[in-house]
Amino acid sequence: MNLSDYVLKFLKQRKVKEVFLITGGAISFMIDSFSRTRGIKYVCVGHEQAAAMMADSYSRIGPNLSCTMVTSGPGATNLITGIACSWFDSIPALHITGQVNSYEKQGAQKGTKNTRQIGFQETDIVSISKPITKFSYQLKNPNEIRYVLEKACYLAKSGRPGPVLIDIPMNFQKVKIKEKKLKRFKIPKKNFDNSILKQNIKKIINILKNSSRPIVLLGGGIKISRTQSKIRNFLNKLNIPVVTTWSGVDLIDHDNFNYVGNIGVYGSRAANFAVQNSDFLLTLGSRLDTRITGGAPNTFARDAKVISVDIDKNELSKKRGLNLHLKINSNLVEFFEIFDKENFTYKNESWLIKCSNWKKKYPIVKKEYYLQKKYVNPYVFINELSKILNNKSIIIADDGGHLTWTIQAFKVKNGQKLFSAFGNSPMGYAFPASIGASIANNKSKVICIDGDGSIQMNIQELQTVVNNKLPIKIIVMNNNGYGIIKQFQELYLNKRYEATTPKTGVVNPNFKAVSRAYGVNYTLISNHKNLKKKLIKSIKSRNPEFIEVLLKPDQKIVPKLQFGNPIEDLSPLLSRKEFNKNMIIKTVNKNRKILEAN
Amino acid sequence: MNLSDYVLKFLKQRKVKEVFLITGGAISFMIDSFSRTRGIKYVCVGHEQAAAMMADSYSRIGPNLSCTMVTSGPGATNLITGIACSWFDSIPALHITGQVNSYEKQGAQKGTKNTRQIGFQETDIVSISKPITKFSYQLKNPNEIRYVLEKACYLAKSGRPGPVLIDIPMNFQKVKIKEKKLKRFKIPKKNFDNSILKQNIKKIINILKNSSRPIVLLGGGIKISRTQSKIRNFLNKLNIPVVTTWSGVDLIDHDNFNYVGNIGVYGSRAANFAVQNSDFLLTLGSRLDTRITGGAPNTFARDAKVISVDIDKNELSKKRGLNLHLKINSNLVEFFEIFDKENFTYKNESWLIKCSNWKKKYPIVKKEYYLQKKYVNPYVFINELSKILNNKSIIIADDGGHLTWTIQAFKVKNGQKLFSAFGNSPMGYAFPASIGASIANNKSKVICIDGDGSIQMNIQELQTVVNNKLPIKIIVMNNNGYGIIKQFQELYLNKRYEATTPKTGVVNPNFKAVSRAYGVNYTLISNHKNLKKKLIKSIKSRNPEFIEVLLKPDQKIVPKLQFGNPIEDLSPLLSRKEFNKNMIIKTVNKNRKILEAN
Repeated sequence: MNLSDYVLKFLKQRKVKEVFLITGGAISFMIDSFSRTRGIKYVCVGHEQAAAMMADSYSRIGPNLSCTMVTSGPGATNLITGIACSWFDSIPALHITGQVNSYEKQGAQKGTKNTRQIGFQETDIVSISKPITKFSYQLKNPNEIRYVLEKACYLAKSGRPGPVLIDIPMNFQKVKIKEKKLKRFKIPKKNFDNSILKQNIKKIINILKNSSRPIVLLGGGIKISRTQSKIRNFLNKLNIPVVTTWSGVDLIDHDNFNYVGNIGVYGSRAANFAVQNSDFLLTLGSRLDTRITGGAPNTFARDAKVISVDIDKNELSKKRGLNLHLKINSNLVEFFEIFDKENFTYKNESWLIKCSNWKKKYPIVKKEYYLQKKYVNPYVFINELSKILNNKSIIIADDGGHLTWTIQAFKVKNGQKLFSAFGNSPMGYAFPASIGASIANNKSKVICIDGDGSIQMNIQELQTVVNNKLPIKIIVMNNNGYGIIKQFQELYLNKRYEATTPKTGVVNPNFKAVSRAYGVNYTLISNHKNLKKKLIKSIKSRNPEFIEVLLKPDQKIVPKLQFGNPIEDLSPLLSRKEFNKNMIIKTVNKNRKILEAN
Repeated sequence: MNLSDYVLKFLKQRKVKEVFLITGGAISFMIDSFSRTRGIKYVCVGHEQAAAMMADSYSRIGPNLSCTMVTSGPGATNLITGIACSWFDSIPALHITGQVNSYEKQGAQKGTKNTRQIGFQETDIVSISKPITKFSYQLKNPNEIRYVLEKACYLAKSGRPGPVLIDIPMNFQKVKIKEKKLKRFKIPKKNFDNSILKQNIKKIINILKNSSRPIVLLGGGIKISRTQSKIRNFLNKLNIPVVTTWSGVDLIDHDNFNYVGNIGVYGSRAANFAVQNSDFLLTLGSRLDTRITGGAPNTFARDAKVISVDIDKNELSKKRGLNLHLKINSNLVEFFEIFDKENFTYKNESWLIKCSNWKKKYPIVKKEYYLQKKYVNPYVFINELSKILNNKSIIIADDGGHLTWTIQAFKVKNGQKLFSAFGNSPMGYAFPASIGASIANNKSKVICIDGDGSIQMNIQELQTVVNNKLPIKIIVMNNNGYGIIKQFQELYLNKRYEATTPKTGVVNPNFKAVSRAYGVNYTLISNHKNLKKKLIKSIKSRNPEFIEVLLKPDQKIVPKLQFGNPIEDLSPLLSRKEFNKNMIIKTVNKNRKILEAN
């Protein structure tokens, strides 16, 4: 058995069903093993960057491990942006890179250590990827293979998950190994003492008992720990209002009475009012990023006792002005396990109703948006899209404006999955991620919500969609330039639209011609007329479909926090009278003006 | 004056005329400075990866410094593969990345050092890029800007050149600075003692006097040190045969009587015989990579006293079995300066003629190739292309098969530029590099020689070509899969074509439809009939043109070294009788069989 045969056998045992790859000199022995191995397939893609993003979303959809295989040098470095997506969003993924022969690499022979390169396409991918992986290792010896694979997979999935990379010299790939003699990796024993966690949960309950305006914040950690199913039971006990972060947006049915909305810089007024007026905030699996807390974390939930449950103790101790009342460094699996045993319920009908009223009073999608005659209003579009999609849909948004509109306006149904590469947020993620998700989900329909700038970054993968007959719906929300930067330039740079518009060098291709050139159906939605009909037709089709949606070039994100304001005070600012009516706690400065970006 | 205004002023002083960029949140203040600065422009591209490759080739064309500007996170990580091209091929290029505000980045506040990310799209690009840059630095203080820019540019261009990266936090970009108060970087004084170099040059002359079969090898270092113009004078003194490496392929007119050919694994038989039979080999600016020496460097030029001039002392001491008789660690500028003063000539007519006869006897492009009826023979195609192109042409090849065919068969005329990203050799380099070269050269025609696998990696830049009206000729040599890997699989993997052919998942798009979708003219050349006529028409046009050339799917690279053989013995192997006739020195093993890849 070759080492590379063993790698495939190992991946099969870990239930990897598809590997995303591009071949190349230094990985060809590894890939040759597919010819001898049943039950594991590969998907040839157009760019390694896309392979890494496919593996990222394959892993988000789960339940299996995801994997890429690429060659040395540029094959490996092309993975970096996709690996960063997995790193920042805590997604386990295994990247296997080929490397030059062990005897010809830098340092293998005397005097070769300090050269830039010895072998052809040799690149020190281990050092390059180290800052954004949990484990990045070049195989020193073929007999390490089992140990290294087991360690890599353990680290990828344990604690706070993340991507790992194993670099395998070409000559090792074809070495004969004796499976039985391979060294194993010992999974570190957890001497988990849950007495502290038990005490902390008792503390939570005590604090909650004395609270009158409690909120629970659901973060992406719940998905990462695969504890979604625990939420219902949890809310049965704690019948209190729920808000979500962007990463947690699909953790609860948005029609659920407890659900108020998304919070943060681009949150809903309702959810932000709820959090900012709360006296108790339990955050589950959220790193409380500044997109959540606003640029001044000391103004976040400032009247509340904030209790944060996070697996990463570094996230709990980062402060930035935010005062955590209780830091619980725990896996959510264990947290829910103990919490479930507590015999305790909580309810405060009036607070629930207050939050629900905010939700009714401040909807994101306003009725007047429907009246727009020219172009499509993105809030209307996302609203209609979310009405059409069933509860098994997977929706992946890219970044910038269209991501924001999607997260703001999409009404998640129970069972739907809606995500993006939130922390890294590269242009071009959604499309390859949709491919990865579709393949992870038995070649199912996936809704890709992209922008006119972003779709171009991985446009070559249209061919992968066609080759694999994936019924992906590629929605391009075209506002003719980089919308979110245009809005920034309008606000802070006196409308100097450098490098964001056709006049300043950002010109779109003809999307109709390009999508059709790859053999993908194309639909244009240029205003609200027929929007629903066209959308239904494209979504129902069993083919890949490219749907271009024309937006106003200066379409705004509404609401949005002005830099420096606390998150309850989203722009456009409410009249101070109306604003004050919504504030139960003291505002920071009742007469505050819009702060200029300093 | 803003810090970012100062950066542009500085770049202008360094004669940067165009910056390749994509905007984004963390770089938008920097890019806003273009609205206030005349005499420096930007080119908006479709993918940061392409921007880095454009900057790389912009710098190769010269004479000016090249620069990219991109945003933090994915904007920065997308540069990596392009930066690696510059690193391995010693190309100076300055990359400016935006970063999150200095006060919100990791480590800026207590407790934030060990988190994965604090600011939005924050990524530690300095650590990630460190292994492949000469200088990678995040600005700590706005007043460092002049010092850091001067240091970066000095390092990029001095010694062995290479790429540099400066990461500038967003808030620093808009800070007001006082130019006069800025700290300067002191260029280290060279206490250059050229007495050793003088002695070494005397030694070279002495050895040469006692040699009867001398060869000069021209490497890419001559281009990097901009000493091309010295070659003619040099060869007037030393009237001896010349061979080139791939990087040095365009340093001499291929019709020059002294020129024998390219050497190495894919070299010409003539040039390899010349080097392998030499008793004196002077290598100028070549790192003597294993693609040059063959997999067993101890068999390289084994009867010769090898004298190597290299600016990087690590390259001189790396050995790998190769025995350098004299190591000269020097810049070629100084080398030629001293050499020019030596009053000395050398000529050995019979050796010159012997080499010239090899060149005649073993041409790369064989007449019989022209008789091929179906498909285009790449050697015929490149031969015809090189006849058509004038002596100002810039030709950029990508990687794999079509790069090899190009380097083997193209007959360089004096003044032409022919290159690729040799050391890194990413799929997808040639096309954006052609854009960079065209822009560096006053929007001139550039010939891009690409493959069907490679062109897809940066296909989005068709829009950049169209936006900027660049008359680039994109030649796609289509052998329906990854040709160089197919040849490898045929030789070493018993024709198991995993992940290299349409049957195994590598399916090309319809190039005609795709190029036309972007508004680029398309021409198909499917056999030798009309080849010349079609080619002339497309090359003459003032528009961008897409030329698809259909090759046999199993088109081979001929000749090519079998793994393990010394470079004089290229495959297909000559009869031992013929082979022995060409060998003046003892062969390693006269009855050697083809070695299997071990």
